[in-house]
Amino acid sequence: MATRPAPVLTSAHRIVLRLGVDNRPGRFAEVARVIGEQGGSLGVIDLVEATPTVHVRDVTVDMPDEQSAARLASAIHGLDGIEVLSVSDAAFRLHEGGKIEVRGRISVRNKDDLSLVYTPAVARVSSAIAQDPAKAWTLTMRGNAVAIVSNGSAVLGLGDIGPLGALPVMEGKSLLFRDLAGISAFPLVIDARTVEEIVGTVAHLAPTFGGINLEDIAAPACFEVERQLRARVDIPVFHDDQHGTAIVVLAALRNAAAVVGLPLSETTVVILGAGAAGIGTARLLHRAGVASVLVCDRRGIVGPERTDLTQEKRMLVSELGTTRDGSLADALAGAHAFIGVSGPGLLSLEAVRTMARPRIVFALANPVPEIDPFLVEPEADVVATGRSDHPNQVNNVLAFPGVFRGLLDAHAIGVTDDVELAAADALAAVVSPGLRSAEYILPSPFDPQVVPAVAAAVTEKARASGLTR
Amino acid sequence: MATRPAPVLTSAHRIVLRLGVDNRPGRFAEVARVIGEQGGSLGVIDLVEATPTVHVRDVTVDMPDEQSAARLASAIHGLDGIEVLSVSDAAFRLHEGGKIEVRGRISVRNKDDLSLVYTPAVARVSSAIAQDPAKAWTLTMRGNAVAIVSNGSAVLGLGDIGPLGALPVMEGKSLLFRDLAGISAFPLVIDARTVEEIVGTVAHLAPTFGGINLEDIAAPACFEVERQLRARVDIPVFHDDQHGTAIVVLAALRNAAAVVGLPLSETTVVILGAGAAGIGTARLLHRAGVASVLVCDRRGIVGPERTDLTQEKRMLVSELGTTRDGSLADALAGAHAFIGVSGPGLLSLEAVRTMARPRIVFALANPVPEIDPFLVEPEADVVATGRSDHPNQVNNVLAFPGVFRGLLDAHAIGVTDDVELAAADALAAVVSPGLRSAEYILPSPFDPQVVPAVAAAVTEKARASGLTR
Repeated sequence: MATRPAPVLTSAHRIVLRLGVDNRPGRFAEVARVIGEQGGSLGVIDLVEATPTVHVRDVTVDMPDEQSAARLASAIHGLDGIEVLSVSDAAFRLHEGGKIEVRGRISVRNKDDLSLVYTPAVARVSSAIAQDPAKAWTLTMRGNAVAIVSNGSAVLGLGDIGPLGALPVMEGKSLLFRDLAGISAFPLVIDARTVEEIVGTVAHLAPTFGGINLEDIAAPACFEVERQLRARVDIPVFHDDQHGTAIVVLAALRNAAAVVGLPLSETTVVILGAGAAGIGTARLLHRAGVASVLVCDRRGIVGPERTDLTQEKRMLVSELGTTRDGSLADALAGAHAFIGVSGPGLLSLEAVRTMARPRIVFALANPVPEIDPFLVEPEADVVATGRSDHPNQVNNVLAFPGVFRGLLDAHAIGVTDDVELAAADALAAVVSPGLRSAEYILPSPFDPQVVPAVAAAVTEKARASGLTR
Repeated sequence: MATRPAPVLTSAHRIVLRLGVDNRPGRFAEVARVIGEQGGSLGVIDLVEATPTVHVRDVTVDMPDEQSAARLASAIHGLDGIEVLSVSDAAFRLHEGGKIEVRGRISVRNKDDLSLVYTPAVARVSSAIAQDPAKAWTLTMRGNAVAIVSNGSAVLGLGDIGPLGALPVMEGKSLLFRDLAGISAFPLVIDARTVEEIVGTVAHLAPTFGGINLEDIAAPACFEVERQLRARVDIPVFHDDQHGTAIVVLAALRNAAAVVGLPLSETTVVILGAGAAGIGTARLLHRAGVASVLVCDRRGIVGPERTDLTQEKRMLVSELGTTRDGSLADALAGAHAFIGVSGPGLLSLEAVRTMARPRIVFALANPVPEIDPFLVEPEADVVATGRSDHPNQVNNVLAFPGVFRGLLDAHAIGVTDDVELAAADALAAVVSPGLRSAEYILPSPFDPQVVPAVAAAVTEKARASGLTR
């Protein structure tokens, strides 16, 4: 018997086996035994069909990884009296036909309805909006509609897979916008590579939407795209990889620092990763009053002596007031907090041990963190990751639904650092000080307090900042 | 008492009056009397609140036009024992908050769901599509998604009202796509004026959709936009004002000609209006084998001697083989069929009387036709309009849902004249020869046979024409 694999912690590798099981005592127990041996966790069992001799069942199993899922089917196949009729991947099954759809909020059943919602009566509504464009906020979908725009050039762990490959991710985001914040979010994957093409396309689409969520667009284009769009359109443009990440990291850092009794104004932070997430987070932490923020890329500190920096990184050096150069190890020595938004295994335990105490480690690379959270836990006071199978999951879904809900409610013309700071503070405050601990610095994305709290803070700050119509 | 207005034929001017009515015998009868006097048709009456002295009721009334709707409220206001608490326009009420929304086909309730539909499992689906883009047809929304794109430069009777004003119309179309054909149609109103801007925007969006419905884009830009897009993207691009109109008109003409016993190959047609609808219809009728198609604009026949023609109209002269010049009256003398896609009152009864017999008049300008259909009926064998309050309504909604359903089902890479001819034939055939008559040449848009019949014909022809993947 093989050594038992690691326990199953997510449903990501869920499979559904359709099995024909001989109707003899102990046959299904054999199946259950093999599932356990292969590291699987048995879930729902449905009876599809029963004859006196055979029971056909759909058996849902969570497996630790893709390889073990494949092995399981062949192991069951070898059992006496069991036939494997089909093996399907639960994730693929859920994606069949797409995850979202456009539906009416009202229905058209006859010519009377048609006359009211389409021609001729719609002409009165259209004329009213043409005369007073502000009416579009209440008389059309615009007031509750967000575009999720991606060219697929930097998709979560996958990189530059292009627009079609990115579509399932954007549909997933759309689902979250709907289920968590009641927003109609339109996934728009675009075949556009240059800053000019992306900006042109999105700017032309602006009248349809109350906000634009840029997503998974590679650095450095993403920065310039957002900057140009913010100057050109009169609705909020929010690149989630930068700002969504920044808001959630700031909220997590605020609570982590509170847990260990360190004021942000005395906290020194090292960020590894100088893409959209790293740079966006560095800027917001700096604005929030963190004592010192050093950003490192694969060549070390993004510092004043570097001659290989992109324009965005040069701007960052000046914005953060970075005066040092050196390696990641140089940066970490004596720092309080490490925030990784980079790649798997890039942080060593030795480097962690050179950090100051109290010590905070956010290893956010996904699916494989910069350092194994279970390994680093004895060496750090607070640990967070981007994974759902570890406490303290830093997940953008804690920010974007509430941020856009708040911006739409305000009919906002834009979004600023101040709004993002307010969102982060509101998110941090959802964890009440009495419950806050090293293993509870962020609420669950399904905590029903999150979206209303973030949205209210965003609306209030947008109004106070003159960002409303 | 004022002379009684014309009877109410559509629900387009439906209002809802909230009235406080004294609880005394005969008070509500007074309200009903005044509604009748003002030409209104009484609909649903809801009791909102009842006290011993007053009944508050919501009274739905269809009025013949906007002016009479305003008059009614003040007439009721003058009645003893009746208080008008509010008057609302039913069309505006239905538009509150927009007519459509984006919803999940599945829901996300907990972290297990999140892991399957979003990160991390979504990465497997994204990778599968990146490796084999054809999988996007089944694993994303693309296979059932259409973009309805308009810049609002030529919106139904309203003209160039811009993108925001066009949005309610596009939402109405989206509703029809969903309710009639189960398609997710995304209204995208764009702030783009030039051919280059429109083409660039739509081409970049192509990966998201299985088809593009261009809508209410002014001529002559619309022709060039469609031509360039068809050359550039690998999904069908269908400008509904041209082709939707053409398909429905051809189906109507086929049945009208059959009713009067005239083969299309012997039918001479005059089209008034040389915008998108006129030119699109002329081309399809010519392709269908109509004996002669003459197009007129406000200066007369679009003919070979004209020196003021746009490039599109010059192309049309050559495509149709037009050899004559002259006025609309010249064109009509001796023609069998008039098809108006122009403006109100542009066809005189005298001109109709110069036409040949049998005689077909389609006066499709909306809301006011080229000639009053009730006036022209004694002089013509078949009459059709674009209005829902007259038999034989020529309405694009008979075409576009089925056309796109068929194109999506075929995973079509484009759409051609042949596909449109097949759609028109299938639509015409929904009216069985046994039932066909001068007042029944087209089915109702709500006839459940329409979409399946058109869709099946489109899918079959697309496959036969090598337009599928």
